[in-house]
Amino acid sequence: MQKPMVAEIIGVGTELLLGNTANTDARDLSEMLSALGINVYYHSVVGDNPERLQGVVNIAKKRADIIITTGGLGPTCDDLTKQVLAESFGLKLYYDEQEAEVIKSFFARRLRGAKMTENNLQQAWLPEGCTVFRNDWGTAPGCAFFAEDTHVVMLPGPPRECRAMFQYCAVPYLKTLSDSEIISHSLRVFGEGESSVEDRLRDMMNALTNPTLAPYAKEGEVMLRVTAKAGSREEAEEMIAPVIETVKERIGELIYGIDVESLEQCVFDLLSARSLTLATAESITGGMLSKRLTDIPGASNVFPGGFVTYSNESKNKLLGIPMELIEEKGAVSQEVAVKMAESARELLGADFGIGITGYAGPNVGEKGDVGVAFAALATETGSFVREMRLGMGRERIRTMAVNNCLDMLRRYLTGLDVVKMKHFN
Amino acid sequence: MQKPMVAEIIGVGTELLLGNTANTDARDLSEMLSALGINVYYHSVVGDNPERLQGVVNIAKKRADIIITTGGLGPTCDDLTKQVLAESFGLKLYYDEQEAEVIKSFFARRLRGAKMTENNLQQAWLPEGCTVFRNDWGTAPGCAFFAEDTHVVMLPGPPRECRAMFQYCAVPYLKTLSDSEIISHSLRVFGEGESSVEDRLRDMMNALTNPTLAPYAKEGEVMLRVTAKAGSREEAEEMIAPVIETVKERIGELIYGIDVESLEQCVFDLLSARSLTLATAESITGGMLSKRLTDIPGASNVFPGGFVTYSNESKNKLLGIPMELIEEKGAVSQEVAVKMAESARELLGADFGIGITGYAGPNVGEKGDVGVAFAALATETGSFVREMRLGMGRERIRTMAVNNCLDMLRRYLTGLDVVKMKHFN
Repeated sequence: MQKPMVAEIIGVGTELLLGNTANTDARDLSEMLSALGINVYYHSVVGDNPERLQGVVNIAKKRADIIITTGGLGPTCDDLTKQVLAESFGLKLYYDEQEAEVIKSFFARRLRGAKMTENNLQQAWLPEGCTVFRNDWGTAPGCAFFAEDTHVVMLPGPPRECRAMFQYCAVPYLKTLSDSEIISHSLRVFGEGESSVEDRLRDMMNALTNPTLAPYAKEGEVMLRVTAKAGSREEAEEMIAPVIETVKERIGELIYGIDVESLEQCVFDLLSARSLTLATAESITGGMLSKRLTDIPGASNVFPGGFVTYSNESKNKLLGIPMELIEEKGAVSQEVAVKMAESARELLGADFGIGITGYAGPNVGEKGDVGVAFAALATETGSFVREMRLGMGRERIRTMAVNNCLDMLRRYLTGLDVVKMKHFN
Repeated sequence: MQKPMVAEIIGVGTELLLGNTANTDARDLSEMLSALGINVYYHSVVGDNPERLQGVVNIAKKRADIIITTGGLGPTCDDLTKQVLAESFGLKLYYDEQEAEVIKSFFARRLRGAKMTENNLQQAWLPEGCTVFRNDWGTAPGCAFFAEDTHVVMLPGPPRECRAMFQYCAVPYLKTLSDSEIISHSLRVFGEGESSVEDRLRDMMNALTNPTLAPYAKEGEVMLRVTAKAGSREEAEEMIAPVIETVKERIGELIYGIDVESLEQCVFDLLSARSLTLATAESITGGMLSKRLTDIPGASNVFPGGFVTYSNESKNKLLGIPMELIEEKGAVSQEVAVKMAESARELLGADFGIGITGYAGPNVGEKGDVGVAFAALATETGSFVREMRLGMGRERIRTMAVNNCLDMLRRYLTGLDVVKMKHFN
């Protein structure tokens, strides 16, 4: 088997150096490259400056087999990635008539009314002999070439275009560099911390070489990636299957999905498949749960709506929770969480209701500590409540509170014990 | 005046190369460095590997006056930034007894019950002769030293710690490197695109050298930064004041705040100062508006709660909007937006109500195009509505819809025409 190839990602753009935006392209490409079995050893970022970009490329040549650039392919005079890279590798640029036509028709089709200025056609200049990557998501084509023992891949900077072109253009190109197929699946895990999940799988992680099993921490979640390299896709899948089976045997209940986008997508899919609906009543999370549900196109099929009851009065007025109960038990209590869930379910005529209350901080609550929260799930057959201690940090506490709500419903819909959770954060 | 210094930010951590997380530290530091008048020319990212980190540091030495590292200061055997940097510059590490005590007391104080393992004290080893940066937000101290004509600053990786230590420890250190004061203010702008704002200020941007005026695009907003360099803080402020005045004269209404965190923070401050409250009714944004309001600690003072009415039925049931109106005008109409705002205001007994409805896509709405949305503001004296065309992209449409709602209330509270808006997106 070949030695794994080493890649360097070069982000080109002064806006990255000014701190206008984080380099999410490097993150996205790194994740996808690692799924291809390609090691990313370096990221570099440089501004729209030809000398400095040249310098960075010369360094990358020496230490990487694959150079991937993002950004600097656009129509303005600042956009000089193709020129500099071509020059670095001694290639000329040619005017690609076909790509010029594609750019013209993009403007005609997508940007009704917007006038195409001539400089847009500058994007049709490409390094001679390159593989052209047509951009179906914007105007700047990308490309790839091989020179001086280095594979060079150039992608546009806007994250949506960069991700799509990597997936649909660069991946097929990079796969031809290897005579083997690399297949990878992601097991999404919620309910235990990374170190705890690692403890339960460490022997496998250490022993396995092909397929490999590797953990990634993701904002309160863990992702496990199983990657196999084989002569064919089928063979790779056959190698992966028993590894997934063993992981399932060990931590099955914690796995909420394989190759699924997010916990909310998992819950959406489960509800959607059975035409069930969910209503929400949020205090501590202030709408974050409903926001995440409605991030998903088509959310209206499963989510009629919800309440954000951020004060005691609104819990009383909108959800009919007695003021006496709030005063006696506290707004952050399992009793109030359950009532919130049940009222939301009833008032919206939904199959399920979720209620969530807690202290997000930074100031300590009157009757409890920051990070204490209660999530309740109301169902046809009764209600469940989970008490949580979510550590510190307002943003993190709110995110974990939402994750816990979604996890409870996910567990209910898959026939698992709803409340059980080994670690709360 | 000195030549501006050049900085390079080196992110250390395999998790960055695996794509687990975006390099937000580099973004945050870049933004803050540019406010100090320091030019960032390069970002680099390298894994927890001593040889490769050494290589990256050697390159940075040659091209930067200031090297700032983030990450790799922790207690595990992977954390080797201090060792490698000290070695690169020929410095020894010493065990700082005082920092060791600080680490011990951090565990005793903050992590009640969590046992401190011995390896945590490894963090007290620091390069000889360095300026120690005490970490009041975590356990790993940072530091700075000057060697081989290079200033080296080491900061921890977790974003919260990195940002805080830069601000409270690194900034004072970096300021001593210059005999002049650099002061910078941010004017936050909403309501016109970057190119339109630039058009109106281009002559100033081009002509000014000290202070400088520079624009930054920020998710549908624009930030203008005015930076002055002078012998004293007072002198710098005096130089900045007339520039801000002129910008205000030209685009005054679009400026929602100076040195303010966000549009929601601006609205929160305005409401809070007058003890006024806001209630929400969200359709297209599905809770994103209330989520952003409740991102702010103390939001409960101005925000009692809201409704997420994602279906026609919930608009009818929760807000009492007649089904006939929805059927006649459409759920995405100014009439429905206004009713939503008015009902939210009434039902929650708030001073203001915001209603927001629209098509986020990706599928086209029945009666209109993706990106069409209506935001309504209900007040004591009547209601206002803004019709918007927010372009494409579900996430962007939703974000811009929320921004528009907040902008309407901001304008109302500052006595400006509420509906007026030159560009909708």
